[in-house]
Amino acid sequence: MKNSLISPASVRLQIREGKLKEPTSGLCPGYAQANLVVLPQKYAYDFLLFAQRNPKPCPLLEVSDTGSRFLKKIAYNADIATDIPKYRVYENGKLTGEYLDIVPFWRDDLVSFLIGCSFSFESELTGAGIEMRHNTEHCNVPMYLTNIPCVPAGSFHGNMVVSMRPIPYEQVVKAVTVTSAIPRVHGAPVHIGCPEAIGIGSLDQPDFGDAVTVKEGEVPAFWACGVTPQAAVMASGTEFCITHAPGHMLITDMKNICLKE
Amino acid sequence: MKNSLISPASVRLQIREGKLKEPTSGLCPGYAQANLVVLPQKYAYDFLLFAQRNPKPCPLLEVSDTGSRFLKKIAYNADIATDIPKYRVYENGKLTGEYLDIVPFWRDDLVSFLIGCSFSFESELTGAGIEMRHNTEHCNVPMYLTNIPCVPAGSFHGNMVVSMRPIPYEQVVKAVTVTSAIPRVHGAPVHIGCPEAIGIGSLDQPDFGDAVTVKEGEVPAFWACGVTPQAAVMASGTEFCITHAPGHMLITDMKNICLKE
Repeated sequence: MKNSLISPASVRLQIREGKLKEPTSGLCPGYAQANLVVLPQKYAYDFLLFAQRNPKPCPLLEVSDTGSRFLKKIAYNADIATDIPKYRVYENGKLTGEYLDIVPFWRDDLVSFLIGCSFSFESELTGAGIEMRHNTEHCNVPMYLTNIPCVPAGSFHGNMVVSMRPIPYEQVVKAVTVTSAIPRVHGAPVHIGCPEAIGIGSLDQPDFGDAVTVKEGEVPAFWACGVTPQAAVMASGTEFCITHAPGHMLITDMKNICLKE
Repeated sequence: MKNSLISPASVRLQIREGKLKEPTSGLCPGYAQANLVVLPQKYAYDFLLFAQRNPKPCPLLEVSDTGSRFLKKIAYNADIATDIPKYRVYENGKLTGEYLDIVPFWRDDLVSFLIGCSFSFESELTGAGIEMRHNTEHCNVPMYLTNIPCVPAGSFHGNMVVSMRPIPYEQVVKAVTVTSAIPRVHGAPVHIGCPEAIGIGSLDQPDFGDAVTVKEGEVPAFWACGVTPQAAVMASGTEFCITHAPGHMLITDMKNICLKE
């Protein structure tokens, strides 16, 4: 059976059973994938407010009920604690470990936030004939910490993280219109053209992910990135937080096309 | 000086000084107006989650810091407690009074939620050549409690309230495309055509506002309505809540066109 024909529910089951531990890029084409942030209830209001105030880096697809490992809307029967291939645990703002499941960490006061992921808009861009350089070069998308401050909310603050894709000049407008139509996965770029203008020193040295080639006749375009909340958790010294590991996302039952509604 | 040329800040000042007590429809054309819901902090997380789970009836434009009467984004220097012409106070889910300001009710634990208002999309519809029947008939838009359940969140639950506008068949598609482009003011209709299908017994007996004529060759179109949170507060028996009085909105500094971003 070809991988691309397997349903999201089947892939989540494989992940739950430990049979799939790899990054989820390319799995279940057409279905949205999601970033995960899990926080104790005492941080949940501030984080929900942070997401409301910063919708471009933190477009919320679903928020669980407190203590529940299950979702009701974007992934039927998904178990937050087992159905993502790899997790990260942060304590007092510091990364303390990576795990294949977070069952031992689960507590009754945890709330899960599922955030839209750029994989969704990348499939739209590719569909529109725009090359994703990091795919061509078989690496992770380059991500940079900018000098653009997020709007703070309670204990959460920090600067925005952006992902960069080199776009040929003649495709820039198309890249903007395609992504602006999908606000629930970061929407239109936050900046086009000048890395220095948003506090990025060198494109060759991304803060997360891998550098990619920017060719003659191309302009770097920057989109708000779902890594922003992880950066905020680190900047804010949050007592306890669980996230997905970069590239290891929750595969939802929701078609990308439904994110346009 | 023509009323339509006065800035939102000036109109808010007139309201603050008690010189303007009327409904705000038609004031400051082009600028977004907003619904208000003020709740004690202990209800704020549940309500923020309710809004996140029900974005069509509750599109949040801004949430204040706890205890602050001022906003930072949509209305510079606006005082939540004085700059709306008329307020309603609810206790234990029951309407207990209407007031011209809420200074005597203000407490340090209150949080203000500002929610997009259909006045914004009505100006777009009118601009697209679609008649707003309630304007022609000089009355309030008809609103109905439906059988469409909102997704509950903590203590908040209730059915969706919708507003109805009769649309000629040949303009239905245009009405959908125009409003779907503005998700931050309720977006596309939730239903078109059959009132019974969403639990509305008779168009002649709206639950809020006034009935309007539906002519031969027109179809009733229903949009999610910002009165929904007031209905949820009533259905949920919330201890204490302040809202704007219907039609008496906060006039923001934000142009309607910016709601499309």
